[in-house]
Amino acid sequence: MSAPSDTPTHSTHPVNTTTTAGTPVKGDATTAHPPAHKPDPTLDNAAQGGQPAPHPSPAAELASLKISLKSALRQFPDFPEKGILFEDIMPIFSNPTTHEGLIRALELSVTKEFGSAGKPDIVVGLDARGFLFGPSLALRLGAGFVPVRKRGKLPGPCESAEYVKEYGSDFFEMQEGAVKSGQKVLVVDDIIATGESLTCEIGMG
Amino acid sequence: MSAPSDTPTHSTHPVNTTTTAGTPVKGDATTAHPPAHKPDPTLDNAAQGGQPAPHPSPAAELASLKISLKSALRQFPDFPEKGILFEDIMPIFSNPTTHEGLIRALELSVTKEFGSAGKPDIVVGLDARGFLFGPSLALRLGAGFVPVRKRGKLPGPCESAEYVKEYGSDFFEMQEGAVKSGQKVLVVDDIIATGESLTCEIGMG
Repeated sequence: MSAPSDTPTHSTHPVNTTTTAGTPVKGDATTAHPPAHKPDPTLDNAAQGGQPAPHPSPAAELASLKISLKSALRQFPDFPEKGILFEDIMPIFSNPTTHEGLIRALELSVTKEFGSAGKPDIVVGLDARGFLFGPSLALRLGAGFVPVRKRGKLPGPCESAEYVKEYGSDFFEMQEGAVKSGQKVLVVDDIIATGESLTCEIGMG
Repeated sequence: MSAPSDTPTHSTHPVNTTTTAGTPVKGDATTAHPPAHKPDPTLDNAAQGGQPAPHPSPAAELASLKISLKSALRQFPDFPEKGILFEDIMPIFSNPTTHEGLIRALELSVTKEFGSAGKPDIVVGLDARGFLFGPSLALRLGAGFVPVRKRGKLPGPCESAEYVKEYGSDFFEMQEGAVKSGQKVLVVDDIIATGESLTCEIGMG
Protein backbone atom coordinates (compact mmCIF):
# COMPACT_ATOMS: atom_id res chain seq x y z
CA MET A 1 0.00 0.00 0.00
CA SER A 2 2.93 2.28 0.53
CA ALA A 3 4.92 1.20 -2.50
CA PRO A 4 6.76 4.09 -4.11
CA SER A 5 4.65 5.48 -6.91
CA ASP A 6 7.05 7.84 -8.62
CA THR A 7 9.09 7.29 -11.68
CA PRO A 8 12.69 6.22 -11.07
CA THR A 9 14.82 9.22 -10.32
CA HIS A 10 18.34 7.88 -10.14
CA SER A 11 19.70 8.86 -13.53
CA THR A 12 22.93 10.79 -13.57
CA HIS A 13 22.33 12.31 -16.98
CA PRO A 14 19.30 14.56 -17.19
CA VAL A 15 17.99 14.75 -20.72
CA ASN A 16 15.07 17.08 -20.29
CA THR A 17 15.16 20.60 -21.60
CA THR A 18 13.78 21.83 -18.30
CA THR A 19 16.95 21.28 -16.31
CA THR A 20 16.75 23.69 -13.44
CA ALA A 21 16.76 21.69 -10.25
CA GLY A 22 16.01 18.15 -9.32
CA THR A 23 15.76 15.15 -7.10
CA PRO A 24 17.97 12.16 -6.43
CA VAL A 25 21.20 12.09 -8.38
CA LYS A 26 24.08 9.89 -7.41
CA GLY A 27 27.69 10.52 -6.56
CA ASP A 28 29.11 13.75 -7.90
CA ALA A 29 25.77 15.20 -8.82
CA THR A 30 26.27 18.14 -6.50
CA THR A 31 28.71 19.56 -9.00
CA ALA A 32 25.76 20.02 -11.32
CA HIS A 33 24.01 22.09 -8.70
CA PRO A 34 26.45 24.58 -7.23
CA PRO A 35 25.19 26.21 -4.05
CA ALA A 36 24.00 29.78 -4.27
CA HIS A 37 27.25 31.24 -2.96
CA LYS A 38 29.16 29.49 -5.76
CA PRO A 39 27.06 30.20 -8.82
CA ASP A 40 27.70 28.33 -11.99
CA PRO A 41 30.58 30.19 -13.68
CA THR A 42 29.06 29.53 -17.09
CA LEU A 43 26.06 31.67 -16.24
CA ASP A 44 25.80 35.22 -17.45
CA ASN A 45 27.76 37.41 -15.03
CA ALA A 46 25.44 40.32 -15.61
CA ALA A 47 22.61 38.40 -14.01
CA GLN A 48 24.43 37.47 -10.82
CA GLY A 49 23.97 40.68 -8.90
CA GLY A 50 20.46 39.80 -7.82
CA GLN A 51 19.20 43.17 -9.12
CA PRO A 52 17.32 42.54 -12.34
CA ALA A 53 17.74 45.16 -15.03
CA PRO A 54 14.59 47.18 -15.85
CA HIS A 55 14.15 45.23 -19.09
CA PRO A 56 16.40 42.19 -18.87
CA SER A 57 16.92 40.09 -21.96
CA PRO A 58 15.28 36.65 -21.84
CA ALA A 59 18.75 35.10 -21.39
CA ALA A 60 19.59 37.36 -18.45
CA GLU A 61 16.18 36.82 -16.91
CA LEU A 62 16.54 33.04 -17.21
CA ALA A 63 20.05 33.11 -15.71
CA SER A 64 18.84 35.20 -12.80
CA LEU A 65 15.88 32.92 -12.20
CA LYS A 66 18.12 29.85 -12.22
CA ILE A 67 20.22 31.33 -9.45
CA SER A 68 17.27 32.12 -7.23
CA LEU A 69 15.71 28.72 -7.91
CA LYS A 70 18.93 26.87 -7.11
CA SER A 71 19.33 28.76 -3.88
CA ALA A 72 15.81 27.71 -2.88
CA LEU A 73 16.66 24.01 -3.07
CA ARG A 74 17.35 21.99 0.05
CA GLN A 75 19.78 19.08 0.09
CA PHE A 76 19.15 15.85 1.98
CA PRO A 77 22.09 13.41 1.90
CA ASP A 78 21.41 9.66 1.82
CA PHE A 79 17.74 9.96 0.83
CA PRO A 80 15.93 7.83 -0.23
CA GLU A 81 18.99 5.59 0.19
CA LYS A 82 22.64 5.86 1.19
CA GLY A 83 24.89 7.58 -1.36
CA ILE A 84 22.16 9.67 -2.96
CA LEU A 85 21.99 13.40 -2.43
CA PHE A 86 18.33 14.37 -2.68
CA GLU A 87 17.70 17.84 -4.05
CA ASP A 88 14.39 18.85 -2.51
CA ILE A 89 12.41 21.06 -4.88
CA MET A 90 9.47 21.57 -2.54
CA PRO A 91 10.66 24.91 -1.10
CA ILE A 92 10.29 26.34 -4.60
CA PHE A 93 6.57 25.55 -4.50
CA SER A 94 5.95 26.71 -0.94
CA ASN A 95 6.96 30.27 -1.82
CA PRO A 96 4.75 31.90 -4.47
CA THR A 97 7.64 34.06 -5.71
CA THR A 98 9.97 31.16 -6.47
CA HIS A 99 7.03 29.10 -7.75
CA GLU A 100 6.17 31.87 -10.21
CA GLY A 101 9.88 32.11 -11.05
CA LEU A 102 9.98 28.39 -11.82
CA ILE A 103 7.09 28.55 -14.28
CA ARG A 104 8.58 31.65 -15.90
CA ALA A 105 11.99 29.92 -16.16
CA LEU A 106 10.39 26.89 -17.79
CA GLU A 107 8.49 29.13 -20.20
CA LEU A 108 11.70 30.96 -21.11
CA SER A 109 13.52 27.65 -21.54
CA VAL A 110 10.86 26.37 -23.91
CA THR A 111 10.96 29.56 -25.98
CA LYS A 112 14.78 29.48 -26.04
CA GLU A 113 14.81 25.86 -27.14
CA PHE A 114 12.01 25.84 -29.69
CA GLY A 115 11.35 29.48 -30.58
CA SER A 116 8.03 31.26 -30.27
CA ALA A 117 6.68 29.45 -33.31
CA GLY A 118 7.73 26.04 -32.03
CA LYS A 119 5.82 26.08 -28.79
CA PRO A 120 4.26 22.74 -27.89
CA ASP A 121 0.58 22.00 -28.45
CA ILE A 122 0.57 19.51 -25.59
CA VAL A 123 2.55 19.21 -22.38
CA VAL A 124 2.70 15.60 -21.21
CA GLY A 125 3.45 15.22 -17.50
CA LEU A 126 4.52 12.06 -15.73
CA ASP A 127 2.88 11.04 -12.45
CA ALA A 128 3.52 12.44 -9.91
CA ARG A 129 6.25 15.10 -10.05
CA GLY A 130 5.39 16.09 -13.61
CA PHE A 131 1.95 17.06 -12.28
CA LEU A 132 3.45 19.67 -9.94
CA PHE A 133 4.50 22.06 -12.70
CA GLY A 134 3.33 20.53 -16.00
CA PRO A 135 -0.24 21.88 -15.81
CA SER A 136 0.94 25.38 -14.82
CA LEU A 137 3.44 25.38 -17.67
CA ALA A 138 0.78 24.19 -20.11
CA LEU A 139 -1.53 27.02 -19.03
CA ARG A 140 1.29 29.52 -19.46
CA LEU A 141 2.06 28.22 -22.97
CA GLY A 142 -1.59 27.96 -23.99
CA ALA A 143 -1.05 24.23 -24.49
CA GLY A 144 -3.10 21.25 -23.39
CA PHE A 145 -1.95 19.09 -20.50
CA VAL A 146 -2.04 15.29 -20.75
CA PRO A 147 -1.04 12.98 -17.90
CA VAL A 148 0.94 9.78 -18.05
CA ARG A 149 0.20 7.51 -15.11
CA LYS A 150 0.99 4.11 -13.76
CA ARG A 151 -1.04 1.26 -15.22
CA GLY A 152 -4.62 1.04 -13.98
CA LYS A 153 -5.06 4.66 -12.93
CA LEU A 154 -6.56 6.09 -16.15
CA PRO A 155 -9.99 5.05 -17.46
CA GLY A 156 -10.79 4.04 -21.00
CA PRO A 157 -8.55 2.76 -23.79
CA CYS A 158 -4.91 3.56 -23.12
CA GLU A 159 -1.57 3.29 -24.84
CA SER A 160 0.98 1.68 -22.57
CA ALA A 161 4.74 1.29 -22.46
CA GLU A 162 7.04 -0.63 -20.17
CA TYR A 163 10.03 0.94 -18.51
CA VAL A 164 12.84 -0.68 -16.60
CA LYS A 165 13.61 0.47 -13.10
CA GLU A 166 16.54 -0.46 -10.91
CA TYR A 167 14.52 -3.30 -9.42
CA GLY A 168 12.11 -4.70 -11.99
CA SER A 169 9.88 -2.93 -14.48
CA ASP A 170 6.64 -1.01 -14.53
CA PHE A 171 4.16 0.36 -17.05
CA PHE A 172 3.09 3.85 -17.99
CA GLU A 173 -0.24 4.60 -19.62
CA MET A 174 -1.65 7.51 -21.56
CA GLN A 175 -5.24 7.77 -22.78
CA GLU A 176 -5.74 6.98 -26.45
CA GLY A 177 -6.35 10.06 -28.55
CA ALA A 178 -4.96 12.43 -25.93
CA VAL A 179 -2.21 13.39 -28.35
CA LYS A 180 -3.17 13.74 -31.98
CA SER A 181 -1.02 13.12 -35.01
CA GLY A 182 1.12 16.11 -35.88
CA GLN A 183 0.89 17.81 -32.50
CA LYS A 184 4.08 19.11 -30.93
CA VAL A 185 4.58 17.52 -27.53
CA LEU A 186 6.76 18.51 -24.59
CA VAL A 187 7.29 15.77 -22.01
CA VAL A 188 8.02 16.84 -18.43
CA ASP A 189 8.91 14.55 -15.59
CA ASP A 190 10.97 15.86 -12.76
CA ILE A 191 12.54 19.30 -12.95
CA ILE A 192 15.59 17.24 -13.72
CA ALA A 193 14.22 14.51 -15.92
CA THR A 194 14.94 10.85 -15.51
CA GLY A 195 16.46 9.48 -18.65
CA GLU A 196 14.90 6.06 -18.62
CA SER A 197 11.31 6.97 -18.00
CA LEU A 198 11.46 9.82 -20.48
CA THR A 199 12.85 7.59 -23.19
CA CYS A 200 10.05 5.14 -22.55
CA GLU A 201 7.48 7.88 -22.78
CA ILE A 202 8.72 9.08 -26.15
CA GLY A 203 8.35 5.52 -27.41
CA MET A 204 4.63 5.65 -26.70
CA GLY A 205 3.92 8.52 -29.05
CA MET B 1 5.64 -1.80 -8.11
CA SER B 2 2.33 -0.97 -9.71
CA ALA B 3 0.38 -0.54 -6.50
CA PRO B 4 -2.19 2.22 -6.73
CA SER B 5 -0.70 5.43 -5.47
CA ASP B 6 -3.71 7.67 -5.25
CA THR B 7 -5.79 8.51 -2.30
CA PRO B 8 -9.03 6.55 -1.93
CA THR B 9 -11.71 8.03 -4.10
CA HIS B 10 -14.86 6.14 -3.26
CA SER B 11 -16.62 8.53 -0.97
CA THR B 12 -20.20 9.38 -1.77
CA HIS B 13 -20.17 12.66 0.11
CA PRO B 14 -17.72 15.22 -1.18
CA VAL B 15 -16.70 17.63 1.55
CA ASN B 16 -14.33 19.88 -0.31
CA THR B 17 -15.24 23.43 -1.24
CA THR B 18 -13.93 22.82 -4.73
CA THR B 19 -16.78 20.62 -5.86
CA THR B 20 -16.90 20.97 -9.60
CA ALA B 21 -16.28 17.57 -11.09
CA GLY B 22 -14.82 14.35 -9.91
CA THR B 23 -13.75 10.77 -10.06
CA PRO B 24 -15.18 7.52 -8.77
CA VAL B 25 -18.41 7.88 -6.90
CA LYS B 26 -20.75 5.00 -6.22
CA GLY B 27 -24.37 4.33 -6.95
CA ASP B 28 -26.50 7.36 -7.63
CA ALA B 29 -23.62 9.75 -7.94
CA THR B 30 -24.57 10.72 -11.46
CA THR B 31 -27.43 12.72 -10.07
CA ALA B 32 -24.83 15.04 -8.58
CA HIS B 33 -23.41 15.62 -12.04
CA PRO B 34 -26.21 16.32 -14.46
CA PRO B 35 -25.12 16.13 -18.07
CA ALA B 36 -24.75 19.37 -19.98
CA HIS B 37 -28.15 19.09 -21.65
CA LYS B 38 -29.80 18.87 -18.21
CA PRO B 39 -28.09 21.61 -16.25
CA ASP B 40 -28.49 21.76 -12.52
CA PRO B 41 -31.79 23.64 -11.96
CA THR B 42 -30.33 25.34 -8.90
CA LEU B 43 -27.81 27.18 -11.07
CA ASP B 44 -28.37 30.76 -12.06
CA ASN B 45 -30.61 30.75 -15.12
CA ALA B 46 -28.99 33.84 -16.52
CA ALA B 47 -25.74 31.97 -16.95
CA GLN B 48 -27.15 29.06 -18.92
CA GLY B 49 -27.25 30.63 -22.33
CA GLY B 50 -23.57 30.01 -22.96
CA GLN B 51 -23.10 33.67 -23.88
CA PRO B 52 -21.30 35.37 -21.01
CA ALA B 53 -22.40 38.90 -20.27
CA PRO B 54 -19.83 41.63 -20.91
CA HIS B 55 -19.22 41.95 -17.16
CA PRO B 56 -20.78 38.92 -15.51
CA SER B 57 -21.05 38.84 -11.76
CA PRO B 58 -18.72 36.36 -10.03
CA ALA B 59 -21.75 34.14 -9.30
CA ALA B 60 -22.84 34.14 -12.95
CA GLU B 61 -19.29 33.54 -14.15
CA LEU B 62 -18.90 30.61 -11.76
CA ALA B 63 -22.23 29.11 -12.80
CA SER B 64 -21.30 29.40 -16.46
CA LEU B 65 -17.90 27.84 -15.86
CA LYS B 66 -19.46 24.93 -13.96
CA ILE B 67 -21.65 24.14 -16.95
CA SER B 68 -18.78 24.13 -19.41
CA LEU B 69 -16.59 22.11 -17.05
CA LYS B 70 -19.30 19.51 -16.45
CA SER B 71 -19.86 19.13 -20.15
CA ALA B 72 -16.15 18.45 -20.63
CA LEU B 73 -16.21 15.42 -18.32
CA ARG B 74 -16.25 11.91 -19.72
CA GLN B 75 -18.01 9.04 -17.97
CA PHE B 76 -16.59 5.53 -17.76
CA PRO B 77 -18.95 3.01 -16.13
CA ASP B 78 -17.50 0.21 -14.01
CA PHE B 79 -14.06 1.78 -13.58
CA PRO B 80 -11.92 1.03 -11.64
CA GLU B 81 -14.38 -1.64 -10.54
CA LYS B 82 -17.94 -2.75 -11.28
CA GLY B 83 -20.64 -0.42 -9.99
CA ILE B 84 -18.54 2.72 -10.01
CA LEU B 85 -19.12 5.45 -12.56
CA PHE B 86 -15.78 7.14 -13.12
CA GLU B 87 -15.99 10.82 -13.98
CA ASP B 88 -12.88 11.45 -16.05
CA ILE B 89 -11.57 14.96 -15.47
CA MET B 90 -8.64 14.69 -17.86
CA PRO B 91 -10.43 16.28 -20.86
CA ILE B 92 -10.60 19.48 -18.80
CA PHE B 93 -6.80 19.58 -18.68
CA SER B 94 -6.19 18.64 -22.29
CA ASN B 95 -7.99 21.77 -23.52
CA PRO B 96 -6.34 25.02 -22.40
CA THR B 97 -9.70 26.84 -22.40
CA THR B 98 -11.41 24.45 -19.99
CA HIS B 99 -8.20 24.14 -17.97
CA GLU B 100 -8.08 27.92 -17.54
CA GLY B 101 -11.80 27.81 -16.75
CA LEU B 102 -11.19 25.25 -14.02
CA ILE B 103 -8.57 27.36 -12.27
CA ARG B 104 -10.77 30.42 -12.57
CA ALA B 105 -13.75 28.49 -11.18
CA LEU B 106 -11.67 27.31 -8.23
CA GLU B 107 -10.44 30.84 -7.62
CA LEU B 108 -14.02 32.15 -7.69
CA SER B 109 -15.12 29.35 -5.37
CA VAL B 110 -12.42 30.22 -2.84
CA THR B 111 -13.33 33.91 -2.92
CA LYS B 112 -17.03 33.08 -2.60
CA GLU B 113 -16.36 30.78 0.35
CA PHE B 114 -13.80 32.79 2.29
CA GLY B 115 -13.99 36.34 0.93
CA SER B 116 -11.10 38.30 -0.53
CA ALA B 117 -9.61 38.83 2.91
CA GLY B 118 -9.83 35.16 3.84
CA LYS B 119 -7.76 33.78 1.00
CA PRO B 120 -5.48 30.92 2.04
CA ASP B 121 -1.76 31.42 2.68
CA ILE B 122 -1.04 27.82 1.73
CA VAL B 123 -2.70 25.37 -0.64
CA VAL B 124 -2.02 21.80 0.44
CA GLY B 125 -2.42 19.25 -2.36
CA LEU B 126 -2.70 15.50 -1.97
CA ASP B 127 -0.63 13.20 -4.19
CA ALA B 128 -1.39 12.76 -7.05
CA ARG B 129 -4.62 14.40 -8.24
CA GLY B 130 -4.23 17.37 -5.92
CA PHE B 131 -1.00 18.11 -7.79
CA LEU B 132 -2.85 18.57 -11.09
CA PHE B 133 -4.57 21.82 -10.10
CA GLY B 134 -3.31 22.68 -6.59
CA PRO B 135 -0.11 24.42 -7.74
CA SER B 136 -1.94 26.41 -10.44
CA LEU B 137 -4.57 27.49 -7.93
CA ALA B 138 -1.86 28.47 -5.41
CA LEU B 139 -0.15 30.60 -8.06
CA ARG B 140 -3.46 32.26 -8.93
CA LEU B 141 -4.17 33.03 -5.25
CA GLY B 142 -0.60 34.15 -4.50
CA ALA B 143 -0.38 31.34 -1.95
CA GLY B 144 2.32 28.76 -1.32
CA PHE B 145 1.84 25.16 -2.41
CA VAL B 146 2.71 22.29 -0.07
CA PRO B 147 2.39 18.63 -1.05
CA VAL B 148 1.13 15.74 1.01
CA ARG B 149 2.53 12.45 -0.19
CA LYS B 150 2.58 8.79 0.66
CA ARG B 151 5.05 7.76 3.33
CA GLY B 152 8.67 7.64 2.20
CA LYS B 153 8.42 10.05 -0.73
CA LEU B 154 9.35 13.30 1.02
CA PRO B 155 12.84 13.93 2.45
CA GLY B 156 13.62 15.27 5.91
CA PRO B 157 11.50 15.35 9.06
CA CYS B 158 7.81 14.84 8.29
CA GLU B 159 4.51 14.89 10.07
CA SER B 160 2.51 11.78 9.28
CA ALA B 161 -1.07 10.62 9.65
CA GLU B 162 -2.75 7.31 8.99
CA TYR B 163 -5.87 6.99 6.95
CA VAL B 164 -8.14 4.02 6.49
CA LYS B 165 -8.90 2.79 3.01
CA GLU B 166 -11.40 0.23 1.89
CA TYR B 167 -8.75 -2.46 2.15
CA GLY B 168 -6.27 -1.64 4.92
CA SER B 169 -4.64 1.65 5.80
CA ASP B 170 -1.90 3.94 4.54
CA PHE B 171 0.06 6.97 5.69
CA PHE B 172 0.30 10.51 4.42
CA GLU B 173 3.28 12.72 5.13
CA MET B 174 3.91 16.45 5.00
CA GLN B 175 7.27 18.09 5.64
CA GLU B 176 7.67 19.64 9.08
CA GLY B 177 7.50 23.41 9.03
CA ALA B 178 5.81 23.51 5.63
CA VAL B 179 2.76 25.06 7.25
CA LYS B 180 3.38 27.58 10.00
CA SER B 181 1.21 28.34 12.98
CA GLY B 182 -1.56 30.78 12.15
CA GLN B 183 -1.45 30.27 8.40
CA LYS B 184 -4.72 29.78 6.58
CA VAL B 185 -4.65 26.48 4.71
CA LEU B 186 -6.80 25.17 1.87
CA VAL B 187 -6.58 21.43 1.30
CA VAL B 188 -7.28 20.13 -2.20
CA ASP B 189 -7.47 16.51 -3.20
CA ASP B 190 -9.57 15.55 -6.13
CA ILE B 191 -11.86 18.05 -7.81
CA ILE B 192 -14.46 16.18 -5.82
CA ALA B 193 -12.71 15.55 -2.53
CA THR B 194 -12.60 12.24 -0.77
CA GLY B 195 -13.97 12.57 2.71
CA GLU B 196 -11.72 10.12 4.50
CA SER B 197 -8.36 11.26 3.23
CA LEU B 198 -9.28 14.91 3.68
CA THR B 199 -10.34 14.37 7.27
CA CYS B 200 -7.06 12.62 7.93
CA GLU B 201 -5.14 15.51 6.41
CA ILE B 202 -6.84 18.08 8.60
CA GLY B 203 -5.81 16.01 11.62
CA MET B 204 -2.15 16.53 10.71
CA GLY B 205 -2.28 20.31 11.02
